[in-house]
Amino acid sequence: MIRTALTETLGIQHPILSAPMGSVSGGALASAVSDAGGLGFIGGGYGEEAWLSRELELCDPSRVGVGFITWHLLSPSRALGLALERRPRAIFLSFGDPAPYLEEIQAAGIPVILQVQSVEDARRAADHGAAVIVAQGTEAGGHGAARATLPLVPAVVDAVSPIPVVAAGGITDGRGVAAALLLGAAGALLGTRFMATPEALISPRAKSRLVESTGDDTLRTTVFDRIRGYAWPAQYTGRALRNAFAERWHGREHELEQNLESERARYDQAVAGEDFDQGVVFTGEGVDLVRKVTPAAEILAEIMEEAERALRGGAELLHT
Amino acid sequence: MIRTALTETLGIQHPILSAPMGSVSGGALASAVSDAGGLGFIGGGYGEEAWLSRELELCDPSRVGVGFITWHLLSPSRALGLALERRPRAIFLSFGDPAPYLEEIQAAGIPVILQVQSVEDARRAADHGAAVIVAQGTEAGGHGAARATLPLVPAVVDAVSPIPVVAAGGITDGRGVAAALLLGAAGALLGTRFMATPEALISPRAKSRLVESTGDDTLRTTVFDRIRGYAWPAQYTGRALRNAFAERWHGREHELEQNLESERARYDQAVAGEDFDQGVVFTGEGVDLVRKVTPAAEILAEIMEEAERALRGGAELLHT
Repeated sequence: MIRTALTETLGIQHPILSAPMGSVSGGALASAVSDAGGLGFIGGGYGEEAWLSRELELCDPSRVGVGFITWHLLSPSRALGLALERRPRAIFLSFGDPAPYLEEIQAAGIPVILQVQSVEDARRAADHGAAVIVAQGTEAGGHGAARATLPLVPAVVDAVSPIPVVAAGGITDGRGVAAALLLGAAGALLGTRFMATPEALISPRAKSRLVESTGDDTLRTTVFDRIRGYAWPAQYTGRALRNAFAERWHGREHELEQNLESERARYDQAVAGEDFDQGVVFTGEGVDLVRKVTPAAEILAEIMEEAERALRGGAELLHT
Repeated sequence: MIRTALTETLGIQHPILSAPMGSVSGGALASAVSDAGGLGFIGGGYGEEAWLSRELELCDPSRVGVGFITWHLLSPSRALGLALERRPRAIFLSFGDPAPYLEEIQAAGIPVILQVQSVEDARRAADHGAAVIVAQGTEAGGHGAARATLPLVPAVVDAVSPIPVVAAGGITDGRGVAAALLLGAAGALLGTRFMATPEALISPRAKSRLVESTGDDTLRTTVFDRIRGYAWPAQYTGRALRNAFAERWHGREHELEQNLESERARYDQAVAGEDFDQGVVFTGEGVDLVRKVTPAAEILAEIMEEAERALRGGAELLHT
């Protein structure tokens, strides 16, 4: 058993969070992670209320957290209020200024977890009273920014101590979890690994792609946001598998914008047909270590066993 | 004392290499690192023979290694031969296909350390008979590629085991070294931290910039290579401080190329005047943790103490 400031603060058994991956992390995945001793998150994503209601009904909301894309909360949506009514274990915000939403969340007595991508934003998150700060590196799948996890985590730890810091981005197995703890993190957040579970709400074909791919096959790009019509702030790009669509348009964004209408019709059709040479599969660089589709509970047990072995092995390197 | 496959293979006391930073890592820095129990490298860089001869004379070549930029060895230069004649502890090659040079190095009985930036290149390095493989992440200062250290290292370890793997990129203190060991690496290579030493051959003004900067202040770019006239292969960019020159030209590379002659005269003049708003300061993302200029021997002692403390602290997180 590994005890850290995160397991204490959140009252969980293992210092592992599953990422609130929009439209991927539903009630089944979140509750499987929480039942196995971590803290699972539902990905509120772009704030679709019907989807969020349904997923919250699939689990005991008091045992899971809910995450949102901060800048998108500006759009009229009752999604945040809807989540708060169900009294989840935590609200997770990333990508944008959380200030306008903190009062409502804190008034409900729900802990706020803020994910940041720079030391400067980590300092702001500490000022905002975050219960936990997630330092997310560029190797993460899906949206993120430029800095890498390994140097970001200790710099954030030094900047916001004693607030517990969780490392995110590029962590796929127990070695990564153990490494994060030695960097000073109190836990780790995993996304890509939990996409390759029966519980994740993506096509089995997309899961097969994950198993077949290596971290050399991913890139950070804006082309999938452009084709899907999401106006992400410029500092955030999405890490995805480098498929035919990305090969065609990455670096030719201006041209894509000029052909958006016809290309979007083609893209939507491909996605409807589960054609992942065109459709996006958001994936982190840690995908090298995703070698099969496994239930979330088994992943958690395996990761914790590996992490404990790594920590013991580290101590065995010491000689007097 | 930390014992690993790297300390065994290279016959050194601590599992720490200093990066062969071209024109920065001379004989004084390399021998200070080796004298303190690591393995120091002279940065052969672009193959200037007179510079390399002089730096090799400043130290006992049998106690240090020499590094080269692989693609640049194609240019007529006696630099590699000159290094081999002095019988260094190891030759370090990065950035390009090492195949044409391996026979000459191996015939001299000198161990070859190959630095790679992807899992695919790591497999090739193993086939080439590398004694040690350095997995370099994108957070490294100076030249590098796209993949990040934290997910790259375990994937490379799994691909090339039992060849010792050294983690490079984003490692600045003992927490980073300890984390690298738990990822499965047998040691760590540090560059940026050793730039902030009296021994490093850069201007004191550049060292002050390092101390003042954070990892949020760096970027990967080609603009400094363009202005300096080095034709780096497209996959390799240089991570440097985001100064006025980078702000002006990054993203406007085509325009820079069209004004190269006049801009180069201006750039050279600025560099001659130690104007680091214009001149490049290659720097890794780990620069957050560079807080003063310290002799290399003190850095090594401090890092090893921190690493041991981190490994012991990791084991203390385990509870039955």
